[in-house]
Amino acid sequence: MQFTARDISFLLNGTIEGDASATVNRLAKIEEATEGALSFLANPKYESFLYTTQASVVIVNKDQVLTEPVTATLVRVDNAYSSFAVLLEKYNSIKLNKSGIEQPSFIHPSAKIGEDVYVGAFAYIGPNVTMGDNCKIYPNCFIADNVTLGNNVTLFPGVTIYFDCVLGNNVTIHSGAIIGADGFGFAPQPDGSYQKVSQIGNVVIEDDVEIGSNTTVDRATMGSTIIRKGVKLDNLIQIAHNVEIGANTVVAAQTGISGSTKIGERVILGGQVGVVGHINVANGSQVQAQSGISRNIIDEGKKWMGSPATGYSDHMRSQVVINRLPELEKRIQELEKIIKEFKK
Amino acid sequence: MQFTARDISFLLNGTIEGDASATVNRLAKIEEATEGALSFLANPKYESFLYTTQASVVIVNKDQVLTEPVTATLVRVDNAYSSFAVLLEKYNSIKLNKSGIEQPSFIHPSAKIGEDVYVGAFAYIGPNVTMGDNCKIYPNCFIADNVTLGNNVTLFPGVTIYFDCVLGNNVTIHSGAIIGADGFGFAPQPDGSYQKVSQIGNVVIEDDVEIGSNTTVDRATMGSTIIRKGVKLDNLIQIAHNVEIGANTVVAAQTGISGSTKIGERVILGGQVGVVGHINVANGSQVQAQSGISRNIIDEGKKWMGSPATGYSDHMRSQVVINRLPELEKRIQELEKIIKEFKK
Amino acid sequence: MQFTARDISFLLNGTIEGDASATVNRLAKIEEATEGALSFLANPKYESFLYTTQASVVIVNKDQVLTEPVTATLVRVDNAYSSFAVLLEKYNSIKLNKSGIEQPSFIHPSAKIGEDVYVGAFAYIGPNVTMGDNCKIYPNCFIADNVTLGNNVTLFPGVTIYFDCVLGNNVTIHSGAIIGADGFGFAPQPDGSYQKVSQIGNVVIEDDVEIGSNTTVDRATMGSTIIRKGVKLDNLIQIAHNVEIGANTVVAAQTGISGSTKIGERVILGGQVGVVGHINVANGSQVQAQSGISRNIIDEGKKWMGSPATGYSDHMRSQVVINRLPELEKRIQELEKIIKEFKK
Repeated sequence: MQFTARDISFLLNGTIEGDASATVNRLAKIEEATEGALSFLANPKYESFLYTTQASVVIVNKDQVLTEPVTATLVRVDNAYSSFAVLLEKYNSIKLNKSGIEQPSFIHPSAKIGEDVYVGAFAYIGPNVTMGDNCKIYPNCFIADNVTLGNNVTLFPGVTIYFDCVLGNNVTIHSGAIIGADGFGFAPQPDGSYQKVSQIGNVVIEDDVEIGSNTTVDRATMGSTIIRKGVKLDNLIQIAHNVEIGANTVVAAQTGISGSTKIGERVILGGQVGVVGHINVANGSQVQAQSGISRNIIDEGKKWMGSPATGYSDHMRSQVVINRLPELEKRIQELEKIIKEFKK
Repeated sequence: MQFTARDISFLLNGTIEGDASATVNRLAKIEEATEGALSFLANPKYESFLYTTQASVVIVNKDQVLTEPVTATLVRVDNAYSSFAVLLEKYNSIKLNKSGIEQPSFIHPSAKIGEDVYVGAFAYIGPNVTMGDNCKIYPNCFIADNVTLGNNVTLFPGVTIYFDCVLGNNVTIHSGAIIGADGFGFAPQPDGSYQKVSQIGNVVIEDDVEIGSNTTVDRATMGSTIIRKGVKLDNLIQIAHNVEIGANTVVAAQTGISGSTKIGERVILGGQVGVVGHINVANGSQVQAQSGISRNIIDEGKKWMGSPATGYSDHMRSQVVINRLPELEKRIQELEKIIKEFKK
Repeated sequence: MQFTARDISFLLNGTIEGDASATVNRLAKIEEATEGALSFLANPKYESFLYTTQASVVIVNKDQVLTEPVTATLVRVDNAYSSFAVLLEKYNSIKLNKSGIEQPSFIHPSAKIGEDVYVGAFAYIGPNVTMGDNCKIYPNCFIADNVTLGNNVTLFPGVTIYFDCVLGNNVTIHSGAIIGADGFGFAPQPDGSYQKVSQIGNVVIEDDVEIGSNTTVDRATMGSTIIRKGVKLDNLIQIAHNVEIGANTVVAAQTGISGSTKIGERVILGGQVGVVGHINVANGSQVQAQSGISRNIIDEGKKWMGSPATGYSDHMRSQVVINRLPELEKRIQELEKIIKEFKK
């Protein structure tokens, strides 16, 4: 893709200063940009970069005052930051604008495929799959029997969806994520071995959910593991069977949520957090990275930390004393010595 | 799949109350069931659901007394719970009853394939692979040179088995699990760089093992990484090179076991546990979630917690005091003040 | 592969004692070897195994004195350990010596492919990919648009490289690793939902890097996530957007590094470590397993432990007292009692 300053100015309804025919073919930060890059300056703090940048074109605010000569072509707009965000999204959507059915791919004759979809080579669409419009199924994806996808679903390469799962509209799943594998259910036997408990439920993912690379969401034993509208899951997360995650909750990488636990709405879980099974975590809870939640959280909107987790400020107070423990022990010894003297 | 109450009654040797031609096409919990679902009532505590359920057919105990009218067709059996478990397993095995060789798949001419196997499209069976009967190799799986699989092995979509690995009978591996990638072995060099240590061993997985999604089991440097009979591994677990895991041990999600460590039999490791390398963990040990095992565990059947882990009850006692540390420090200050007064 | 003692002796410039026509077809530890195996004895401590081993051929040091009869054929060399390492590497490179383009694979006509490459079946090479010589792309790999690979790059089965990423020479990536998926960037909206921030940067991986199974390295929001020369990453690691990892740094399994953090050179991070975003970790830092790094580390070459991490020896001192906390509390109570008596 190649654009001139004139193209960009037209697109953003801006005005040009400098060479209108300057061409760019990529986006870059103003301080890292090289020739052929398009950049932007929104924060006046970084004005000095404007005079040293190698970018060919820079988007600036309408009212940006220049105090030194500039070599880049400038495109002046009302709001440089939001204009750049517009370009960024457009750029991304052009990049990801795949379409058509590549060969060889496997589409079962009983599958119902919507309009304007992309199915990459080596993708597998199983029996009775229903897929909405504008879906993009990248190469090496696997969609099992009876899965339903809404509109505008994107599965990046190598995503696996087990049978019977249901995905809403505008769901994006990154490479290597596994949706609907068996929950970890085994019944202990008298001889010390374990017998498999069949996992016949499914996973339901509502609209506007994004799921990161290599994250695993297990199917329910019966019923559904549910990821509500607007949830964002980072990479390498474990969601166990029969978990429910409330709307607009955000979970950072490598966190694990055990079976049948219900996470509320607008919760924020940091990275590497663990949550035990069969509990509830209240709406708006915020849990620091590496914490372990071992019991119900009932009060909404509180901060938690530690393993097992306690209130954030309680935890920080204890933590400070922990670092002084050896000194504290010496003070106790000192007191004991004095008391012993007194007693004599 | 569609069944009538009559079919189900016949299969379970039960008796029918209500419309024998009522049809069902799925299983559901009694409180969540909708029309067309088959459900069961085993626990008398939930009797009230029997009168409100939307299920079309419900399996109940022979001696279940009705105190209100029921709209669903009832199938009475000796034991509703175990009858339902029978159906559940049958349902699951029908769902997973794939067979035949789908095209395009890649089967090297030197591979020996047993009877009644399923090989999905885009699956890759390398040179000199030996595969037993009734194996199911789903799409996008990769089985490298010289791998041996027993009978009844199921590899869900996207499983990778590196060369020379050996799997026993009735092994189930979920999507994205990687068996036999190189162990993490690098020798530090004088210039600060690292030289790769070739990893030429393999992974041996005995009978009746189940391995979860995106779990990684590394090959041994030399010899074998061994997963003994009946072991169950959850998702996103790391098993390093030359580890051995004893029979019937269960490991929860996101736990990591470092190189050359030997875990005993009937051990239970919680989620996000870490175990250092080159140690032994005694038979029957139980380790709480997020613990770190940093030295040999010699006594069998004990509970462990914390990072580094100590005995469970010791840990809990210390934990309680940690939460009181700020208060404890104040009490020490108070004592020091009083002593100072005394001294005067 | 089958070799005689004579072949091996010739290759290593050694001398034979025993049957020169003894054949071997695999490598094994001396204490585990069975007939047909080649082994070595370097450490005199293990001499006794020489008299009991079932190996067909054993490599020993030139000056090894025998005190009992030996059944295996011996090959005497200057240094048994380094001779065996040579064989081990040769053995491994023969095992992995795949070549040619298998069918069906997908290579976009605009891709530029070097000489002597291997492209496995079901591998996908997208538009405008540039690939150097001697690359091995195993089955089910996906390489997106505009990706650049240097020479001698090995991607084991099922590796995914998103668009625009750049890999140097001698890079090895194990199965299931995902390079260049979107960073976790979402802007909170007034209604509690989140809006995606387009991630248009890439990942740059320099020469001699090895990356383990199912590890995820996210693309930068803008600019590059950078893995410097000689870095070794174990399995199931999370590297967030805009992270930079310095040359020859080693990271153990299941560790996570948050966005925009810069890890120095020759750093060692243990397993399950977490590092927060937007900080620097000094060159040569060593971080114990399960630690949490929550702030800048400025001093080079120090050891760290705990969550949040403190200096290693400070942490160990506090840890010792933590285990004595219940006893400590009793001592305080005792002092309070005595003081109370005094006061009376």
